[in-house]
Amino acid sequence: MKVIFDTDVGIDDAVALLLLEASPEVDLIGVVTGFGNASLATTTRNALYLKERFGYAAPVFQGAADSLAERLGEGVPDFVHGKNGLGDIDLVEPTLSVDPMPGAEAIVALARQYPGEVTLVAVGRMTNVAQALALDAELPKLLKNIVIMGGVFGFNGHRGNVSPVTEANIGGDPLAADIVLGCGAEIVVVGLDVTNETIVDQAFFERLRDNAGDAGKLIHDSNQFYLQFHYDKSGVYECPVHDASAVAYLLRPDLFVTQTAVVRVVTKGIALGQTIHADPQPYYDIKAWHDRPTIEICIGVDATAVREFCESTLSVFGN
Amino acid sequence: MKVIFDTDVGIDDAVALLLLEASPEVDLIGVVTGFGNASLATTTRNALYLKERFGYAAPVFQGAADSLAERLGEGVPDFVHGKNGLGDIDLVEPTLSVDPMPGAEAIVALARQYPGEVTLVAVGRMTNVAQALALDAELPKLLKNIVIMGGVFGFNGHRGNVSPVTEANIGGDPLAADIVLGCGAEIVVVGLDVTNETIVDQAFFERLRDNAGDAGKLIHDSNQFYLQFHYDKSGVYECPVHDASAVAYLLRPDLFVTQTAVVRVVTKGIALGQTIHADPQPYYDIKAWHDRPTIEICIGVDATAVREFCESTLSVFGN
Repeated sequence: MKVIFDTDVGIDDAVALLLLEASPEVDLIGVVTGFGNASLATTTRNALYLKERFGYAAPVFQGAADSLAERLGEGVPDFVHGKNGLGDIDLVEPTLSVDPMPGAEAIVALARQYPGEVTLVAVGRMTNVAQALALDAELPKLLKNIVIMGGVFGFNGHRGNVSPVTEANIGGDPLAADIVLGCGAEIVVVGLDVTNETIVDQAFFERLRDNAGDAGKLIHDSNQFYLQFHYDKSGVYECPVHDASAVAYLLRPDLFVTQTAVVRVVTKGIALGQTIHADPQPYYDIKAWHDRPTIEICIGVDATAVREFCESTLSVFGN
Repeated sequence: MKVIFDTDVGIDDAVALLLLEASPEVDLIGVVTGFGNASLATTTRNALYLKERFGYAAPVFQGAADSLAERLGEGVPDFVHGKNGLGDIDLVEPTLSVDPMPGAEAIVALARQYPGEVTLVAVGRMTNVAQALALDAELPKLLKNIVIMGGVFGFNGHRGNVSPVTEANIGGDPLAADIVLGCGAEIVVVGLDVTNETIVDQAFFERLRDNAGDAGKLIHDSNQFYLQFHYDKSGVYECPVHDASAVAYLLRPDLFVTQTAVVRVVTKGIALGQTIHADPQPYYDIKAWHDRPTIEICIGVDATAVREFCESTLSVFGN
């Protein structure tokens, strides 16, 4: 299972990356960075830091520094991921450096190198993927599929985390997301409808610290900041499992319930970045909903099993 | 209970109007027409037709012929309400005529005549109400309250009926709705979240035909077209109770569960006409959600009791 991981390495991205690295089924062939949870320089530094600390083999390619068009919010969410993007844990600057190929080009090159074999797991803004689509119109059929962490559709009562209707990854580049979700590739969207269902607490991170070696230590330590952010927001010392849920879907799709839909992203106005789903054959006489390829959206999850998947997969780092 | 009924007399508006007329607690002091379910000329004709056939005392004022700004869809939904707006039942042209005062002015004049006493039940596009607000900035506190049939917030799994996220009354004049829902009046919104919960069938209309006199006959006959429209859409010979639910709320608020929220309406783009609710104190750092007055939105309903309320109230026409 050849995987390109497109990531704005933040706290939960690091968990997802370590899950990929821990999974023997996965051949991680590239890590592409982008702005999002922190600046591009910071997320790229973090990707290299994790490569140096955990020794994953995949090259790191640097992607987009900003959105294609209007996005929701300004600056970087350092109140969520810390100033260094990894919960302000102590970290040393890596000595490794990025591959010179730009991120979008790397996506195309790897897809062309292994046609029909590559899964793109995209857990940051969709900018790199949209740019790759602009470089190569055949990309949707060159890729095996795309698994996206992003968006929210209102299932299970869940709503946006950066506006009442907007999830952060999609709000961070709405136009890119609208392009990607309509590109015709085989796509599964893992949004807040399910990631907000899978809640973890301090005990979860303590078990990882105790049982998952140095990976568990990094995850535990960086997530202290993340837990505090969610506590300040909700009054409960718990947090959802966002990016790692995309990896859980990749390896254990049986843990998720999906629905076929066409999806559009709002690219202007107060609903900026909202993902709106419609039935594949809507009766609405509105052009926006016609001639749009179908994708799968996650609407249900076995949260207990996803938590267990994370713990058991990461436990290889403890051996 | 002094009531102004703002209506685009269609099939379900007629049921709501007859419920108001049948309720001894209600003093119907004005009917204001607007475009929507049919053209302004047709809805005004229908208001006068019902006045002539059922003898209600309230004057009919003619309101707006079109939306303040961009709206969703073109033309009139004659596939829902028939070409004559009343399910294409046979009807004779009324001999009565409208009051010369324009609709928006009438709302202001009646509110000023009975300060603090008037409930505005608005079940069409919000254009007349928005125009009345423009005429008199004190209207929000002159009115006792406003009960609106419109919008959808995603509760109980319900979505839009003219776009995936848009209800027809709000989609028919999004800007007017955004003005009205932010005007500061005491407002309750009865949207598809509850009206789509209250489903009726042919047997319901047959009972009205048999037990509610000439009113029951009109309701039964006009709703045949409405049932057929919903059958064509859903494959089930049933329809929701839209406008009548606003009257049910007026007289039996105990049958509804509400939630306090701030609401914005999307006025451009693919989510045009979407009603978006947020907690009164959202943590989102987005201007659109700040400094907005709170309103109540209906999120639950005792559907059986609403159906019974309709039948028992309308039964006075059978005596």
